[in-house]
Amino acid sequence: MSQFRLEVRVKPRPGILDPQGKAIHHALNSLGWEGVDDVHVGKAIYLDLVADDADAAMEAAEAMCRKLLANPVTETFEVSLVEEPVGAES
Amino acid sequence: MSQFRLEVRVKPRPGILDPQGKAIHHALNSLGWEGVDDVHVGKAIYLDLVADDADAAMEAAEAMCRKLLANPVTETFEVSLVEEPVGAES
Repeated sequence: MSQFRLEVRVKPRPGILDPQGKAIHHALNSLGWEGVDDVHVGKAIYLDLVADDADAAMEAAEAMCRKLLANPVTETFEVSLVEEPVGAES
Repeated sequence: MSQFRLEVRVKPRPGILDPQGKAIHHALNSLGWEGVDDVHVGKAIYLDLVADDADAAMEAAEAMCRKLLANPVTETFEVSLVEEPVGAES
């Protein structure tokens, strides 16, 4: 069993209302950044978990997304491995 | 001038209280994922912006983080380029 760090990015589906993104977009334009065309805001979730191997860790994280972390109606998610195993546990 | 998509990840500094991460950690354990050791929650912000080149786009995004998107006392940020230029504007 090794420890893995995974990064999960949950973002609103295209077309879904994103008031936080709109607010940031407006604020950036007000601060003088005219080149900003669009802003979307999602969540970045960092999971430290113990698993047999990287594939098992990725599968567990995807199951967590489907069950708890993301709302499949309004959000999409991506999972990626941040670090290789940092320590082995027996 | 080309359009770039940048991903900004803002996360709480280590040691800073992260109640949202703690709540997700507890919920995952309650749902039966015992292998989860720690959870941290930050923001993932997607910026579509027009800039001369990728370096200028990255610099603008870092300036936005320092000015608006991240609180330097409690948060750290990372900026990365998601896509190569998708279109040229004169």
